[in-house]
Amino acid sequence: MRSQKSKIVVVGAGFAGLRTVLNLARANADILLIDRQNYHTFVPLLYQVASGFIAPETISYPLRRILRNITNARFLQAEVKSINFAAKIIQTDRVVVPYDYLVLATGSQTKFLGVDGAPEYSLPLRTLADAVKLRDRILTNVDKAACESDAERRQQLLTFVIVGGGATGVELAGALIELITETLAKDYPRLDLRSMRLILINSGERLLATFPEDLGEYAGRQLRRRGVKIHYSTRVSCVMPGAVELDDGTMIETANVIWAAGVEANLPNGDSQLPTAKQDRICVHSTLQILEHPEVYAVGDVAYVKQDGEPLIGVAPEALQQGTAVAKNLTRQLRGLSPQPFDYFNKGTAAIIARNAGVAYLFGRIPLKGFFAWLLWLSIHLYYLPGDANRFALLFSWIRDYIFKERRVRQIFAFHEASLSNVQDVNSHRLQSHIQNPGD
Amino acid sequence: MRSQKSKIVVVGAGFAGLRTVLNLARANADILLIDRQNYHTFVPLLYQVASGFIAPETISYPLRRILRNITNARFLQAEVKSINFAAKIIQTDRVVVPYDYLVLATGSQTKFLGVDGAPEYSLPLRTLADAVKLRDRILTNVDKAACESDAERRQQLLTFVIVGGGATGVELAGALIELITETLAKDYPRLDLRSMRLILINSGERLLATFPEDLGEYAGRQLRRRGVKIHYSTRVSCVMPGAVELDDGTMIETANVIWAAGVEANLPNGDSQLPTAKQDRICVHSTLQILEHPEVYAVGDVAYVKQDGEPLIGVAPEALQQGTAVAKNLTRQLRGLSPQPFDYFNKGTAAIIARNAGVAYLFGRIPLKGFFAWLLWLSIHLYYLPGDANRFALLFSWIRDYIFKERRVRQIFAFHEASLSNVQDVNSHRLQSHIQNPGD
Repeated sequence: MRSQKSKIVVVGAGFAGLRTVLNLARANADILLIDRQNYHTFVPLLYQVASGFIAPETISYPLRRILRNITNARFLQAEVKSINFAAKIIQTDRVVVPYDYLVLATGSQTKFLGVDGAPEYSLPLRTLADAVKLRDRILTNVDKAACESDAERRQQLLTFVIVGGGATGVELAGALIELITETLAKDYPRLDLRSMRLILINSGERLLATFPEDLGEYAGRQLRRRGVKIHYSTRVSCVMPGAVELDDGTMIETANVIWAAGVEANLPNGDSQLPTAKQDRICVHSTLQILEHPEVYAVGDVAYVKQDGEPLIGVAPEALQQGTAVAKNLTRQLRGLSPQPFDYFNKGTAAIIARNAGVAYLFGRIPLKGFFAWLLWLSIHLYYLPGDANRFALLFSWIRDYIFKERRVRQIFAFHEASLSNVQDVNSHRLQSHIQNPGD
Repeated sequence: MRSQKSKIVVVGAGFAGLRTVLNLARANADILLIDRQNYHTFVPLLYQVASGFIAPETISYPLRRILRNITNARFLQAEVKSINFAAKIIQTDRVVVPYDYLVLATGSQTKFLGVDGAPEYSLPLRTLADAVKLRDRILTNVDKAACESDAERRQQLLTFVIVGGGATGVELAGALIELITETLAKDYPRLDLRSMRLILINSGERLLATFPEDLGEYAGRQLRRRGVKIHYSTRVSCVMPGAVELDDGTMIETANVIWAAGVEANLPNGDSQLPTAKQDRICVHSTLQILEHPEVYAVGDVAYVKQDGEPLIGVAPEALQQGTAVAKNLTRQLRGLSPQPFDYFNKGTAAIIARNAGVAYLFGRIPLKGFFAWLLWLSIHLYYLPGDANRFALLFSWIRDYIFKERRVRQIFAFHEASLSNVQDVNSHRLQSHIQNPGD
């Protein structure tokens, strides 16, 4: 027996897609949520996985568990291959799914900005897999450095270059310098950390471009004070195995290039090209419906949404509020009412820099920096993380780090071995016939 | 400046090797611990990782953290390639390490007993990587079954065959049947679990051969009551992609064959063949020194140690006590005293079957079964797990599972993708043009 209810398909279980499904819990419709992964990733904390604070399990949550109590929703783990908007059919790698209403919440992906070698030789930080690979790379290279007798090569292994001074780059820089100078310094007592360098490459004149000038400058000062070297108004022109070249001609020898510079919409393939704007984002009406298809919505990072004439910047609160709005509009459509325009209420944004240092920009008006902004950041993320057990584990890890300067997750798991192959290219092994301090 | 102290090298950071190093903390020697991984694995809880109780981080512990306070010990993450016992030199994949004293604690590995196809098509459970692969396989195949319209193929995906009825096989069977019938049944409410089968293949007439007869029979009854089908006095003759053949000619269609049947010593390559006994274990004197080399010890699963004429069975308490004994003997040798014979004090062994059901055999004399044996098993493992944070996380997961019948870790992480390739061989995808219940 086939149900006669309207069928709503939501593609993508990030902040926007998941919120849409949860807010449709009482809608008179059959809802299908599709995602490549069987878990939701709490993206704002990816950098904490990459820097060994927490296990990947802590910031991911099984989708079937979340949907268990939503009786009108089901989940399908599949990859969307193409969408036929005319026939209202989605082709996935597993099954073909028809829909009456569709919500595109496919998010964003790393954009390498056409820089030669960046896709091959730099590590992005967009997914949980990226975060784990990055952690493995950092731990592996510090370990190699400890066994390396050649000073130049040791320097290369201990040089970390982060490309991009937005929130991701800043947060990772702060967490990484703490990981190395505090935790790893204790693990490798004989390793000379003066040869460690953490370099942040920023295309603009100050960090955190979406925050007020003052906060960006504060972030820069805080990172510099902790030992991060920042190149302002500088771009990367080429990434090679073992080095990165800047547009001013500087060459930095490094085995660790982290790409936190660009994002673009993660567009699904359609039968017709969807009209897109900046960063390949899908153009939408003020109701979040896409042009020409009133039964299709786009939300979150994949959508180009303007508020008061300015495009939204692509942060979690925007995605969550859009999810809520789309659920409301779909409910209206099901009842024969017309959808209403989306209106973003900007509660503010926040970024963490390092221990006791954060920035926040509340209601788009009030700038805040230092200890209280840091505390605010922690509280917000703790509050929004799904799952009590995860929340508890996160709080525990933070307290532990704060008191003991100790990161828990420093295992290099062999089952991520593939991620290390690139490192081995960079540092072809030379068997040394004898070393003074093996295992230093 | 090269230290004139004696140099002790310990190969392998399992129970025996790690205990040796920790107990040599005050010895007047330079100690180097070598392991392939940079973490210690608490092997008895591997099955809990495989069945989604806990994250791999919970039962692994960074070795550099453990050794941080042991001032005379260092760690080297490397793979031992060969040992020149005459020249007292170890060749690793990173450096060459000379030694004055050597402790071989390289443990055991899976033995496929010459069964065709077992190495290729069955999943062992000896390492943390094995456990994660197994978890991914189970979760993936249950998910595929939910989307599968062909009843036969669904049955194949939902058939789990465990080869071996020792502690590993029994513990995994109990944990797996609980995972599927309790947690996953809630995740997939429309999946018919009557087509799920869990089959345990046991070569002997009863389970848990190292325990008294009565306890083995109890384990069999408990598993059967929970839905496990047990084949006694049966061996596997061949493992194929998608099926397993038993020696009585029975063919079982299954996409999940788990190998828990055989172990053999994980022998290092030497310049001369070491004399070995059963399971390829190294013959040792009663002092745990290997034959002909008084400066080399073998401990734990790699050593063939007899007690009262019977070989030890290869459990954690034996390895720990041998580690203690070797540390003591090395300290004696450093002082010019002769090593003393190892004497195993059997406090007992225990195995867990399922919720509220365990077996224990105390002091090699007192059999115990049921709730109290189960509670004893939990207490022992909680006590011996290294790291307070891990212990806390473990306790929390157990309480959660006990009260809510809920396993926390059900994410299928894309970064273990390689592990799924085998599954895809078995179940070549057929795109169905339409299915009734996608995402069931």
